[in-house]
Amino acid sequence: MPNAYEKLVTELREIALLNSANSVLGWDERTQLPPKGAEHRGNQCSLLARMAHERFTSPKIGDLLGECESQSRGAAPDSDIGATLRETRRDYDRATKLPASLVEEMTKTAVLAQAAWGEARAKSDFPMFQPWLSKTLDLKRQEIACINRGGEPYDTLLDEFEPTETAANLRRVFESLRGSLVELIAKIQSSPRKAPVEILHRSFPAAAQEKLAREAASAVGFDFQAGRLDVSLHPFCTDIGPGDVRMTTRYDDHYFGDAFFGVLHETGHALYEQGLPSEKHFGSPLAAAVSLGIHESQSRMWENLIGRSRAFWNHFLPKAKQAFPESLRDVTPDDWYFAINDVRPSLIRTESDETTYNLHILLRFELEMELLNDQLPVADLPDAWNQRMKKYLGVDVPDVSQGCLQDIHWSGGAIGYFPTYTLGNLYAAQFFEQAQKDLGDLDAQLSRGEFAPLLTWLREKIHRHGKRYSAGQLVKNITGKELSAEPLLRHLRNKASELYGV
Amino acid sequence: MPNAYEKLVTELREIALLNSANSVLGWDERTQLPPKGAEHRGNQCSLLARMAHERFTSPKIGDLLGECESQSRGAAPDSDIGATLRETRRDYDRATKLPASLVEEMTKTAVLAQAAWGEARAKSDFPMFQPWLSKTLDLKRQEIACINRGGEPYDTLLDEFEPTETAANLRRVFESLRGSLVELIAKIQSSPRKAPVEILHRSFPAAAQEKLAREAASAVGFDFQAGRLDVSLHPFCTDIGPGDVRMTTRYDDHYFGDAFFGVLHETGHALYEQGLPSEKHFGSPLAAAVSLGIHESQSRMWENLIGRSRAFWNHFLPKAKQAFPESLRDVTPDDWYFAINDVRPSLIRTESDETTYNLHILLRFELEMELLNDQLPVADLPDAWNQRMKKYLGVDVPDVSQGCLQDIHWSGGAIGYFPTYTLGNLYAAQFFEQAQKDLGDLDAQLSRGEFAPLLTWLREKIHRHGKRYSAGQLVKNITGKELSAEPLLRHLRNKASELYGV
Repeated sequence: MPNAYEKLVTELREIALLNSANSVLGWDERTQLPPKGAEHRGNQCSLLARMAHERFTSPKIGDLLGECESQSRGAAPDSDIGATLRETRRDYDRATKLPASLVEEMTKTAVLAQAAWGEARAKSDFPMFQPWLSKTLDLKRQEIACINRGGEPYDTLLDEFEPTETAANLRRVFESLRGSLVELIAKIQSSPRKAPVEILHRSFPAAAQEKLAREAASAVGFDFQAGRLDVSLHPFCTDIGPGDVRMTTRYDDHYFGDAFFGVLHETGHALYEQGLPSEKHFGSPLAAAVSLGIHESQSRMWENLIGRSRAFWNHFLPKAKQAFPESLRDVTPDDWYFAINDVRPSLIRTESDETTYNLHILLRFELEMELLNDQLPVADLPDAWNQRMKKYLGVDVPDVSQGCLQDIHWSGGAIGYFPTYTLGNLYAAQFFEQAQKDLGDLDAQLSRGEFAPLLTWLREKIHRHGKRYSAGQLVKNITGKELSAEPLLRHLRNKASELYGV
Repeated sequence: MPNAYEKLVTELREIALLNSANSVLGWDERTQLPPKGAEHRGNQCSLLARMAHERFTSPKIGDLLGECESQSRGAAPDSDIGATLRETRRDYDRATKLPASLVEEMTKTAVLAQAAWGEARAKSDFPMFQPWLSKTLDLKRQEIACINRGGEPYDTLLDEFEPTETAANLRRVFESLRGSLVELIAKIQSSPRKAPVEILHRSFPAAAQEKLAREAASAVGFDFQAGRLDVSLHPFCTDIGPGDVRMTTRYDDHYFGDAFFGVLHETGHALYEQGLPSEKHFGSPLAAAVSLGIHESQSRMWENLIGRSRAFWNHFLPKAKQAFPESLRDVTPDDWYFAINDVRPSLIRTESDETTYNLHILLRFELEMELLNDQLPVADLPDAWNQRMKKYLGVDVPDVSQGCLQDIHWSGGAIGYFPTYTLGNLYAAQFFEQAQKDLGDLDAQLSRGEFAPLLTWLREKIHRHGKRYSAGQLVKNITGKELSAEPLLRHLRNKASELYGV
């Protein structure tokens, strides 16, 4: 007879199988689905999601969990059993504390609010979206009241995406980051040196881009026998399950940057998924990613810390020149390195560079916190946004479509999500500094196209642990320190000094 | 409050949604899946299949069905309710009469027997497969004992694929077909005229083949907004649900026949699926195909009766010449028509022509019936196969891999399946003769590329009815006659006379 823990693990595994079937449907929807199949796909996905939710929130899981907890009182919190029960309890409590009526209301509101957002953005009409944002905030306050993990209200929302993280800790780190970034960007702006970005906008036929992107993904360690790279409107990475991790990108024949760095970014996510111990622990928190921030740290590390490094291009520029002999013939390593590291304040977060990006995030974090705490009336959001864009990045926002309506997140109820992007950058820089210490001359390895030592390090330090440790614990275990803005600032300042002489 | 019938329809719809999610996983497995994802995919599919089976065979469905039946005693058998209850009862009884232990044994045996078959075929070693065929036959006899629909034992197996069909009726039709075909083929063999098949084996680059195949599929009515065409090792067509029907093919750069006629074949299946009233009745027998034979009649009609007609190529040969200007420059319409209608006895069913194909099927029908009825010892199958190949087609079988081990069907437990292929040819010819009467000069329409009148006729007469009528009723409703071998024989004799002068 299986004991309670084995039964629980089997249940979690089957629920995860159901959810992973839904992941296949989701991938297919975004890469393959014929247009007239959309409604049916919605019906399939809803049913599978409902069945998985019903099964996970059933009293059976609650009973098994309770039984396991009372049998395992002495288990170390980072043992297999300890971590599994802790994280399952977290998820179970979150899932069962929300009344079905509220979940339904939130799901329906998200669909309608996203539609309203789409129209409002197209028309650059904030009042059209305003009531939906108010309603969304109201529902999030109800969610907070139901779940109430303690601390500030915002902490409960943050907890969904970045478990155990707190607004207070974010303020501590983000505030030290903000002042330094504003200062650094102002210096860069005043430098007479300008990046030769024109070279990224030459002719780059999609087929050759794809070949080069596949070569890069393979080179850094993505296993194409256990995954795919396809095309979709919005790039993403999805974990189907053991042996099947899929990523997408999109190609622009006249711009090099999007696809290549996009693929490196998704490859970072994918390497994390391929490195989780899902062969052994599929369905358990032991085979799940720690948090969105840790996930993002992996994508940002490969995209920025490696993919925009001089060392990486020592190895890869000759390959790029083979792929695009006409367009890159006259390009020097210095010009290339400068072009892909251009720093330039701009309006749109998703198009911004490694340095200014974080200010886009800090602004959103501050505003969503103020909205949630009723310190900022919803109607005043556009003005507050625009003022802060001016203050942090020195840019004037011409209309709300390029301002506070540019992102889909809030309309779908994702409040407390944005900080995970900058957390990703911070974790990545702090991990990377440690890897440089641990691995000897990492730059020399990257210059030779030797990516395996770094990937092995990431697997050993991060991937193989699944959710055994929280993000904060992981940072401390690996680097011996609390999360800090300094490693990221050092990295950005070094590049600025090298490229802009500031 | 929904009544029992509405509740039943809702249940059937959700079960069909689950099964259709599995269809997406199956399509993905055969067209997209990275190799290392295979085991996980197996786990996903088993779980969804088990959940759908458990739900369909639950007492809830039995109770609802019983309640509906007692409330609808007066309903006409071909009314919505009458047909839904009749067909659901059929499926429910079949599904619930088999004990779970037998289902499990059959599933396990099928997997092992298919593996043994694969190895036995590769080594051309019948004794290696023999015990698995014996075991499979034994399990089928147990299945027959459990389900026992009455009539001959074979009828119960046939009923799974071709509901209400009987071995006695098949013998009636097949025997008149067999003698005439053997005679016709002998005449063709003695003709001095030979088809110029070399023209099909010139250079046909895959990309151009795909373009032409897509053009043909579109032209005859396949809606690419509601479906896809992809590549897989073995061509197939799968119905995902309303607005989503997917087919596959494979391309050989040096052979025109496989892909083009393969796509027309799958398009025939797909047009049937796209013509079923699934927007309204998804999950109900009213939106399901009548039988495998009727399904095959649609594929064979577009592949053979239309796709290999002179009329079709009056319209399409100029397009093929545009696609392959080098390879087809010197090809006359007469040569082309003769080449694609070459009749030549051969060893392998799947590579055989429209005329000899049916003898491959009749032979299998006779042998599997004799095996099931213990008239033929399993050990004697290879000899019996070879003797009948000699007698019907005049060919000598060099080894079992090109003889009785060539098909996967029996190893997977599909006994009673083969006849549906020839039923498809028979239905197709009988329907097509009727369409020619009903639509005026169909040849002239096809020559002008006007396929819509025929498709509309098929939708009106066949597709829109789902499972409302049995195959036999449908044949009678449409043609006013019982199924007969004569229309197919007339069609084949006419072609033989025209091409071979016999």
